Amino acid sequence: MEKEELQKVYRHSLAHIMAKAVIEIYGKDVQYAIGPEVDDGCYYDFVLPTTVTEEDFPKIEEKMHEIIKRREDWTRKEISRAEALELFKDQKFKTELIQDLPDDEVISIYYTGDDYVDLCRGPHVDNSQELFSPAFKIKNVSGAYWRGDEHRDQLQRIYLFAFPSKDELKAHLAWLKEAQERDHKKIGTQLDLFMFRETAPGMAYWLPRGWVLYQELMKYSREIQLKHKYTEISAPLINNKKLWLISGHWAHYQNNMFIVPGITKGVNATDAIKGEEVEEKYSNEAEDTMAAKPMNCPNAMMAYKRTMHSYKELPIRYSEYDVLHRKEKSGQMNGLFRVQEFRQDDDHTFVTPEQIKDEIKDVIAIADEIYKTFGITYRAEFSTRPEDYMGDLESWNKAEASLKAILDEKYGDGNYEINEGDGAFYGPKIDLQIKDALGREWQCGTVQLDFQLPHNFELTYADKDGVQKMPIVIHRAIFGSFERFIGIITEHFKGAFPFWLNPYQVAVVPIRPEHNEYAQKVVAELEAAGVRVEADFTDVNMRDKIKKFKQMKDPYILVVGDKEAAENTVAVNVRGSNKQVPGVALDKFVELCKKLNAERTLELPQEM
Amino acid sequence: MEKEELQKVYRHSLAHIMAKAVIEIYGKDVQYAIGPEVDDGCYYDFVLPTTVTEEDFPKIEEKMHEIIKRREDWTRKEISRAEALELFKDQKFKTELIQDLPDDEVISIYYTGDDYVDLCRGPHVDNSQELFSPAFKIKNVSGAYWRGDEHRDQLQRIYLFAFPSKDELKAHLAWLKEAQERDHKKIGTQLDLFMFRETAPGMAYWLPRGWVLYQELMKYSREIQLKHKYTEISAPLINNKKLWLISGHWAHYQNNMFIVPGITKGVNATDAIKGEEVEEKYSNEAEDTMAAKPMNCPNAMMAYKRTMHSYKELPIRYSEYDVLHRKEKSGQMNGLFRVQEFRQDDDHTFVTPEQIKDEIKDVIAIADEIYKTFGITYRAEFSTRPEDYMGDLESWNKAEASLKAILDEKYGDGNYEINEGDGAFYGPKIDLQIKDALGREWQCGTVQLDFQLPHNFELTYADKDGVQKMPIVIHRAIFGSFERFIGIITEHFKGAFPFWLNPYQVAVVPIRPEHNEYAQKVVAELEAAGVRVEADFTDVNMRDKIKKFKQMKDPYILVVGDKEAAENTVAVNVRGSNKQVPGVALDKFVELCKKLNAERTLELPQEM
Repeated sequence: MEKEELQKVYRHSLAHIMAKAVIEIYGKDVQYAIGPEVDDGCYYDFVLPTTVTEEDFPKIEEKMHEIIKRREDWTRKEISRAEALELFKDQKFKTELIQDLPDDEVISIYYTGDDYVDLCRGPHVDNSQELFSPAFKIKNVSGAYWRGDEHRDQLQRIYLFAFPSKDELKAHLAWLKEAQERDHKKIGTQLDLFMFRETAPGMAYWLPRGWVLYQELMKYSREIQLKHKYTEISAPLINNKKLWLISGHWAHYQNNMFIVPGITKGVNATDAIKGEEVEEKYSNEAEDTMAAKPMNCPNAMMAYKRTMHSYKELPIRYSEYDVLHRKEKSGQMNGLFRVQEFRQDDDHTFVTPEQIKDEIKDVIAIADEIYKTFGITYRAEFSTRPEDYMGDLESWNKAEASLKAILDEKYGDGNYEINEGDGAFYGPKIDLQIKDALGREWQCGTVQLDFQLPHNFELTYADKDGVQKMPIVIHRAIFGSFERFIGIITEHFKGAFPFWLNPYQVAVVPIRPEHNEYAQKVVAELEAAGVRVEADFTDVNMRDKIKKFKQMKDPYILVVGDKEAAENTVAVNVRGSNKQVPGVALDKFVELCKKLNAERTLELPQEM
Repeated sequence: MEKEELQKVYRHSLAHIMAKAVIEIYGKDVQYAIGPEVDDGCYYDFVLPTTVTEEDFPKIEEKMHEIIKRREDWTRKEISRAEALELFKDQKFKTELIQDLPDDEVISIYYTGDDYVDLCRGPHVDNSQELFSPAFKIKNVSGAYWRGDEHRDQLQRIYLFAFPSKDELKAHLAWLKEAQERDHKKIGTQLDLFMFRETAPGMAYWLPRGWVLYQELMKYSREIQLKHKYTEISAPLINNKKLWLISGHWAHYQNNMFIVPGITKGVNATDAIKGEEVEEKYSNEAEDTMAAKPMNCPNAMMAYKRTMHSYKELPIRYSEYDVLHRKEKSGQMNGLFRVQEFRQDDDHTFVTPEQIKDEIKDVIAIADEIYKTFGITYRAEFSTRPEDYMGDLESWNKAEASLKAILDEKYGDGNYEINEGDGAFYGPKIDLQIKDALGREWQCGTVQLDFQLPHNFELTYADKDGVQKMPIVIHRAIFGSFERFIGIITEHFKGAFPFWLNPYQVAVVPIRPEHNEYAQKVVAELEAAGVRVEADFTDVNMRDKIKKFKQMKDPYILVVGDKEAAENTVAVNVRGSNKQVPGVALDKFVELCKKLNAERTLELPQEM
């Protein structure tokens, strides 16, 4: 069995062990529901006579170790539906599960020793002694609903970390601790970057410091796109249903859209019987029904369509940074990682088939440049024609061959993943997965060909031969959602952003009030050089000021006193170090800052 | 009688003359509804046996002149309701008007000669000969609904220009022609700046050229605000009803908001009787009801409220450029002048009472600087405490005294308008009215004190004495809506924007293909200097290229041939002139462009 498979068996078996332990502790009345394995362990859902708290964890863990040490055999049996219903007649959830099984399903049960049995497909270990080496630890207990339905029984979900060895568990716990320390929601509050409020779930408030960072990212994105001859547009954020009907979003994406229904006036059948007045009510059927845009594409098509085009104008690149809205279930929202409101570095490029290759090469070059600026590596995934593809096979083949040639040339054959048949029905795509400091992968960049939207919007261009042809649309983003990207880099840099990106780049601290004048001069010189500076001229103690700016992770803190003023220097505290570099010439420091900004240097120079 | 009053009488009397003329032409069956005077003339609404078109205008005008020449007397009579109903028994609209009159209303009628009578309050001329000198001309005919209600009779509205003299009418028609040529909707299309589509009524698509201009305006606004120590935030565009309940928008502004109603599940009485299933429907009562923000204020309050504040931190200035949405009736929308989606250079500043004066002085200084950049003059209007004011009288008096002192100092006593009692209930305000090239006034800038919102959101700061006090909020905008401001300046500049603001600043035209190389070099040098350049390297004729760039109103067109390449010069065509300035040294030209951008020069240098 492969290690991964084996790990699944361990984890799943440990869920049974946990259920057995819980029953032994809380008695036969315990109702046990389901206990699957998950990414880093397993869980089991129960109805218990009491509420389990953190204090109960050692007791349960101990009981689990005790059970494992019994070296009990695990036995699989296949039984009839009637036998199963009889066996689990006191277990309401198991009974429901059995009743819901298809008629032809083989019903299997697993015994752990003689006294614990579970309805289960397996596989499991043969004897508990196989669970000697896997290490586990209860993670937490939380509320859950039976079958995720808030109208049904509320259960207690006990969650277990489980790994093949103690070292691996330890490594995972250390990783988790690091991840918690890097949690962008925590850092976002500490650094006063953004906040969320219940009046706008999943939509960030960007506070002054965070908004500077956000805008610097957009500025950087725009600079690169300008260099690559992109032109930018901005289009209505709320559009009539008519648009979404053409684009297909109304049919396929309606549930994820914030809908502003129109008002219909009408008499429904019931009202008519009652002889009631004409009734006004919200309805998606109303002519003036609108919806906030979840994507920029349809508006970009409208912009292209405003005029006739010649092949000479192509490629036409319309980038857009408009605010998008997508509805998410409340349980799915997660800080900046999953939001309901966001902006993308979105672009729609209209090309002839011959232009696909050069255009996508250029997109990859942009991605290279951007990710490198953040010191982030990435890998490419290529998704090809699915079964339900639209358009003609020849276009697909040509397009896929172009993309493959680019990928082979760029990364070398085999150095990217191919997901056969995983492309969208409207065209093949390349996804770029970046890897953060915690080793997690995030899909940020994407390049997708689209044969469908230009068709829906009846787009054309006059080709060399004078014939009107349909352009192909390339959708692409490199950052993806800026919100999510900021979440990722906040955790990646642990809030210590590169100089060019940090909300404030330099903090100025006068030692005593008599140094305010020189400190003001320092601020002015830096600001004139385009450096973002904060200073504290209040009567607070110098050490407290330094402490505050350190907490805010400002890259450089300049401390100014008599000596500095006289010699036209500053004492520099470099982020991450606890000592000051004294006697740094102010003009040289200003030059350094300008250079760091101009070159968007990743590392913060420690030497002055 | 004052001239203005007199003009009203003329116009209103001419409406009667028009009705009389129409009846004489189209017969006694004509139903005449109402005929008020308006800004530049008058109109009358009719139901006619035929559709009036432009070809009928001379006939009606001629008949009007004929009637006026009859020198008929105008007689006013007061009659009883019964007499009035009898007199107008064949006129359905008049009958309805009479029926709707309050019981104690004196009913007056006006005879023009013996055969035309109208229900009217007057006053009117005494004899038609008084209408000899006023000049008039039919403007147009359009559809209108009786009482503006689309469910009622459709009427033909004949609209008349009417002025005291032929010269004044002529001047008005010339002004109108100029205004039509300056129409921003027309210029917007010609210059490819923006467009509107029926899928997003009242919400502009910003096309590449227009979006450059829009962004330059925002950039300029941000630069000035940064200089004045504003900090910027960005907040959710869609917020839960809970927020609007606190801010008061739900109670007072709901009809102007794009509402995303939540879903309620429930059984209404009828359904219960029918024993129907639980019904899901949109409802404003649902917990998750949201609405797109029409104003930034409530979110700014939330941002302030995220933490405790000390008097030492004030003033805190939160500027916001977020997209706002306000519902408008379709008839009220008008290009960029009245839209449903827009951004403002909005700001909310939190101050102590002592800081009001300095803060508002600074706002006026910003306004001065910005309007001057556009060469636009403005005047101030001061609106004071209304009857239904909130807060304590002392605060109002102090605040008003501060504002008055600023205005007196800045403009001199009497050089601004005072609108007594016209302030908002939440605080006094100063509005800034700018004047465009057509002499029209537009309210763009506004500075409002607000004692209400900080109260609703329970905002506080710790004052010197350690006591928690409520800050005062200053709302302010200088551009107002950028959409509207762009509409105004498009008409003001007739599309020939100042160099720094124009979408493209320089167009480059090689004379023949062999000059492309030098032309590319010219483009590169300009772009490296931050100049926005467009060029045409296609095989189109040089003259056509120049014509195209002239139509797009690019400030400078550089023509490049053998001589220029050899001598490192360019031939410059200056916008508005028809000749080229030859032999302009390229490096000097680049310096000129940099200077125009850096200084945001208003006038375009004609000499090279």
